[in-house]
Amino acid sequence: MRATVVLRPKAGILDPQGEAVETSLRHLGFAVAEARVGRVVDLEVDANDVAEAHAAIQRMCEQLLANPLIESYSIQLEGDR
Amino acid sequence: MRATVVLRPKAGILDPQGEAVETSLRHLGFAVAEARVGRVVDLEVDANDVAEAHAAIQRMCEQLLANPLIESYSIQLEGDR
Repeated sequence: MRATVVLRPKAGILDPQGEAVETSLRHLGFAVAEARVGRVVDLEVDANDVAEAHAAIQRMCEQLLANPLIESYSIQLEGDR
Repeated sequence: MRATVVLRPKAGILDPQGEAVETSLRHLGFAVAEARVGRVVDLEVDANDVAEAHAAIQRMCEQLLANPLIESYSIQLEGDR
C-alpha cells in the first residue's frame, strides 16, 4: 500500500532552511511573506488494510521519521482520501 | 495566499536518504518495500488570484526550489483543490 508522510516544523519552531528559502526568494524578486521547509516520505508498506497501514506508519513516525519535539506529521494513504 | 510545493526525487534517480530510511525501518521490524524522501515547502505568497500565484510559484521552482534534473514538483494552492 502506498503512503505519504508529510513532516513539518511545528509552529513557533525555528526553521533556518525556511528562512533561507524566504530570503532567497525575496532577493529574486518574489513577493513571499513566509516559507517553511519540511520533508515528505513516500512509502510502500505491506499491510492488509488501511487501518493496519496507518497504525504501522504512526509507529514509524514515533520511532524514526519524526522528531516529535519539533515536527508535526500527517499520514495520507492511497484509498483513504 | 497559502501554497504547498512538494518536491520529490524523480523515478530512477538515486535517493540515498530514502534508502537509509528504508534500511532503518526494516531494522526496526517494519515491512517496507520502498521509501523515497522529498521536501515540502509551505509558502505564503502575495497574489491576486490562483492563476497568478501558480505562475509565480512555478517560476520559484524553476529558479530556486527545485533541481529539475533530479526532482519533480507539484504545486497545491489553497482554494484550488
